Amino acid sequence: MDVEKSEQQFKDILKKRNHYQQISRLLSWDTQTGAPKKGAEQRAEVNGSISAELFRLSISEEMKKSLDELKKADLQSEVLKKSVEECAKEYNKNNKIPEDEYKDYVILKSNAATVWEEAKENDDFSLLEPYLEKLVEYNKCFIEYLGYEDHPYDPLLDNFEPGVFVKTIDRLFAQLKERLIPLVEAVRKSPHQPQTDFLFQSFSKENQRALSKCFLEKIGYDFESGRLDESLHPFTMALHSEDVRVTTHFKEEDVLSGLLSTIHEGGHALYEQNIATELKDTPMAEGTSFGIHESQSLLWEKFIGQNKNFWKAMYPLLIEHSDGQFTDVSFDDYFFALNEAKPSFIRVDADELTYCLHIIVRYELEKGIFEGNIEVHELPKLWNDKMEEYLGIRPSTDREGVLQDAHWAGGEFGYFPSYALGYIYAAQLKEVLVKDVPMYDEKLLHGDFTPIKAWLTKNVHQHGKLKTPAEIIQETTGGSIDAEPLLNYLETKYSDLYQLKNH
Amino acid sequence: MDVEKSEQQFKDILKKRNHYQQISRLLSWDTQTGAPKKGAEQRAEVNGSISAELFRLSISEEMKKSLDELKKADLQSEVLKKSVEECAKEYNKNNKIPEDEYKDYVILKSNAATVWEEAKENDDFSLLEPYLEKLVEYNKCFIEYLGYEDHPYDPLLDNFEPGVFVKTIDRLFAQLKERLIPLVEAVRKSPHQPQTDFLFQSFSKENQRALSKCFLEKIGYDFESGRLDESLHPFTMALHSEDVRVTTHFKEEDVLSGLLSTIHEGGHALYEQNIATELKDTPMAEGTSFGIHESQSLLWEKFIGQNKNFWKAMYPLLIEHSDGQFTDVSFDDYFFALNEAKPSFIRVDADELTYCLHIIVRYELEKGIFEGNIEVHELPKLWNDKMEEYLGIRPSTDREGVLQDAHWAGGEFGYFPSYALGYIYAAQLKEVLVKDVPMYDEKLLHGDFTPIKAWLTKNVHQHGKLKTPAEIIQETTGGSIDAEPLLNYLETKYSDLYQLKNH
Repeated sequence: MDVEKSEQQFKDILKKRNHYQQISRLLSWDTQTGAPKKGAEQRAEVNGSISAELFRLSISEEMKKSLDELKKADLQSEVLKKSVEECAKEYNKNNKIPEDEYKDYVILKSNAATVWEEAKENDDFSLLEPYLEKLVEYNKCFIEYLGYEDHPYDPLLDNFEPGVFVKTIDRLFAQLKERLIPLVEAVRKSPHQPQTDFLFQSFSKENQRALSKCFLEKIGYDFESGRLDESLHPFTMALHSEDVRVTTHFKEEDVLSGLLSTIHEGGHALYEQNIATELKDTPMAEGTSFGIHESQSLLWEKFIGQNKNFWKAMYPLLIEHSDGQFTDVSFDDYFFALNEAKPSFIRVDADELTYCLHIIVRYELEKGIFEGNIEVHELPKLWNDKMEEYLGIRPSTDREGVLQDAHWAGGEFGYFPSYALGYIYAAQLKEVLVKDVPMYDEKLLHGDFTPIKAWLTKNVHQHGKLKTPAEIIQETTGGSIDAEPLLNYLETKYSDLYQLKNH
Repeated sequence: MDVEKSEQQFKDILKKRNHYQQISRLLSWDTQTGAPKKGAEQRAEVNGSISAELFRLSISEEMKKSLDELKKADLQSEVLKKSVEECAKEYNKNNKIPEDEYKDYVILKSNAATVWEEAKENDDFSLLEPYLEKLVEYNKCFIEYLGYEDHPYDPLLDNFEPGVFVKTIDRLFAQLKERLIPLVEAVRKSPHQPQTDFLFQSFSKENQRALSKCFLEKIGYDFESGRLDESLHPFTMALHSEDVRVTTHFKEEDVLSGLLSTIHEGGHALYEQNIATELKDTPMAEGTSFGIHESQSLLWEKFIGQNKNFWKAMYPLLIEHSDGQFTDVSFDDYFFALNEAKPSFIRVDADELTYCLHIIVRYELEKGIFEGNIEVHELPKLWNDKMEEYLGIRPSTDREGVLQDAHWAGGEFGYFPSYALGYIYAAQLKEVLVKDVPMYDEKLLHGDFTPIKAWLTKNVHQHGKLKTPAEIIQETTGGSIDAEPLLNYLETKYSDLYQLKNH
C-alpha cells in the first residue's frame, strides 16, 4: 500500500475513533446532568458497547496495518507523526493486556463503585476491602504486562501523567512536606483568624446561575461552543473544541462553593476550547495530561480566582447578584474569609494551602501498596495516621477518611499525584505569566482577562497533546518541574494573611 | 447453524441496532435542547456515522444469514417472529435502493433543509424549487425500486402508516371535506364568537415550567423515566421505555401554547413509557405508526385537554400558577376561548376544527406530484387555491403558504396524512374509552386520569409495534378506520360552542 493510501486509512480510523469518543463523552455528560434515573442500566450498556468498539478499534487489524506503514514512512506532518505515536502506544498497551481479563476488570470496577457507595454510607470499609484487593491484584498484573524500568508504580502514573515518574514525585513531595507541614501548623496556631459566617447566608440559585455565567464570560469562555449545567459533582466534558460543556453546583447557603467550582471548570474548559483547529479529529486534540489540565483549572480558580486584584474587580458583581449578604462586609474581611486555610478531612473541600498534603497521603499509600509494603486491610489506619502526621487532625470515621474518594473503587490508581502536579505546574506557569503579560496587576484590577487567556492559549492550550507536560513547562519556564514557585507563593500569601512572623 | 444459535446471533444484532438507535436519538435530543451552536457540524458528522452504521447493519451479511435461518424456523416467540418480519422488511427496502444513491439523497435532504430556511426567510420559493424537484425525482426512483400494486404514493405512505393506502385515505378525506368545509364556514360566520384577549397576558416562564410539570405528573408521566426540557419546537424523544424525554416551549404572553404542547407531548410520552418490558431491545419496542402515535398525543391534547370536565378539575391549577391573569374570567368564557376555532394560515397553530383541512391541502398536492399531474413549480399557486377553497382564506405570501412546513424540504413525502389519521384514530378510540371507563366524566371532573391511562396502556401502549394500526383499531373498536366519530365529535362540540342552528 502506498503512503498516501495508508494516511487516508489512518485518518478514517481516527475519525471513527473520534466519533465514538464524542458519543461516550456525551453519554457520560448526559448521565450526570439529569438523565432519567430508570434509564441508568441501558445507558451503561450503550456506553459499554461504545467502549468495546473503541477498544476493538485500537487493536484492530486495520489499525495495525496503517500504523506499520506510517511508522516506516517519512511523514511531513507533525500532527500525523505524533498521532501515529499515540495510537501505537495505545495499540501496544491494549495488546499487552488480554481482552477478557480487561473486560472482567471493567465489570469489577463498576461493581466496586457501587459497593463503595454502600461502604461509605455505612462507614464500613470491610465491604469494600475484598473488591479493593482484587482491583489491586488486577493492577499488579497489568503492571507486569506493561513492564517498567524503575518502579512498579510508574506504569500507573503513565496513564495520567506521561513522562513523570516516581523518582520525580518523591523529590517534589518531600519538598512540599518539608515546608508545608510547618506552614499549615503555623497558620493553624495563628491568633489572627478570619471571620467567615457572612459567607454562608442565603443566595438564590437563580442568581448564582447568572453570576456563574457572568464569570465564565468574563474569563473568556465561549458559550457558543459550550453550555453550563448543574450536576452533583462539577466537571467539564469536552466532546471536541467547539463543544466543551461545564457543570457546577449551587448551594443556597454557600455561594462561593459553586462560584469557585465554576471558575475551576472554566479553566479546564478554556484549555479545551482553545486547542488549535488543525488538531481536530486527531488524538492530539485534547489536554496533554491530567496534571497540565489541572494546572489550568487551578490557575484560574486559585492563582487568579483567589487573588486580591481579581476580587477588587469582581467583588461588586458578587454584591450585585446577592441579596444584601455582603452589605456590612469590608473588602479585606471578605478577602481573608475567601482565603481561609484550615486542616479538614475532605480533600475536595480543602483549601489551597492544605490541599497538597491530602494528595501526599494518598500517593504514599498507593505507592506502598504497589511496592508490596502495604496491605489493603491496613489502609484505614495508615490513612488516619498520615492525616494526623501531616495535617494535625485525625478522622474519627472512614467515611471522612479512606472511604471519601471514589478513585480507588474506580480502579484509578496513579491518578492522585496529577492533582498536586497541577498545583506545581500552575504556580510555575503563573510566575512567567505575571512577567510576560504587561501590566498584569492592572489588567486584573480592571477585570480584563483577555491577555491572560491569550498567554495561556499561546503557551498551553493551542498545543493540545502535541507537547508533553515536560515540554510545556520547559518551553514556558525554561526549566523543569519545580515545587519552589508553589511553595514561595503559599509561604508569602499565607504569612501575610495570617500575620506569621517566622515565615 | 442451529436455530438457537441463529436466535442468539439475531438478538445480538438487535441489541447493537438498539444501541445505535439510542445514540442517534440522544444526539437528536441534544441538538434541540441547547447543544452548543458551533458544534453543529461535528454533531451532524457523528450522527451521520451512526446512521451509516445502522444502514450497514440492516443489510449486513450477518443480518441476512440470521434472517434466512429464522424465517425457516418454527419460532415460538411472537416477539421474535415479528422482529424477524420487521428486519426482513427493512432488509428488503434498504437493499432495493442503491447505497450510493441513498447517500446522495441524504446529503441533498440536508442541503435542502438549509435552503428551505433561507427560502422561508426571504419568502422566495424559487430558491427551494430546484431542490424540491430533485427530491421528488429521487422519491419517484425509490418508488419504482420499491414497487407498488395500486398507487405510486402507496410506498411513501408505507414509511409512516403501514397498511394504509391511497384508496382508504381518499375515501376518508372526501368525507372530511364534505362535512368540515361547511362546518368551518358556519363557525366563521357565527355571530357568537369568543373573547380571547385574557389568554395573552404575561405568565412567567418559571411558573409555566412548574405548571407543565404538574400537568405531566397528573396524566401519569413518570419523571424517573423521563425529563422535561425546552426547545424551539416541542417534541418527544424516546431512547427506550425508561428514557422518554419531553420538550415544550414557553411563551410569556401565551401560556396555553406551551401548556397544550406539553399535554400533546405527554400523550406521545405515555405511549412510549408504557410499552411492555418484554419488547425491550427489539424493533417491536416502539409506537406502531406515526398515525397511532399522533392519536395518543391528540387524544390527550384535544379530546381530554380541551374537554370541559378536564378543565373543571384543572382550571384552579392554572389560576394558582398565574399572576392574576384569570381573576375576572368566568370558567365558561375561559373554556370558549380555549376552544376558539378560526381558519388560519399556519398548520401548527391551527385549532382542532380546521386542522384536518390543512392536511388535506398537503395530501392532495403530494398525491398530484407523484401521480405526475402536478409540477413542483405549480405548488405555491395550487396551495393558495386550495387554502381558499377549503378554509376560505388565501395566503398572501409563500412564507405563510407552501414554505411554512419543513417536511418536503426534508424529503418527508407521505408523512402528512398521518396527522389526520391520528385525529381519526383518536376520535375512534375515545368513543370506546368513554364507554369502557366507568364514570368517565366523574373521573375527569376529579382530575383522576389513572383509569384513562390504564385503558390506553391496555389497548394501545403495551403492544408497541406488535400490532398494526388496523389491528389496534379493529380490536378496540370492533371496526376499521372510520371518520364518523371525529366528524360527530366536531359537529356536536362546535355547533354547541358557536350556537349553530343547522348542525
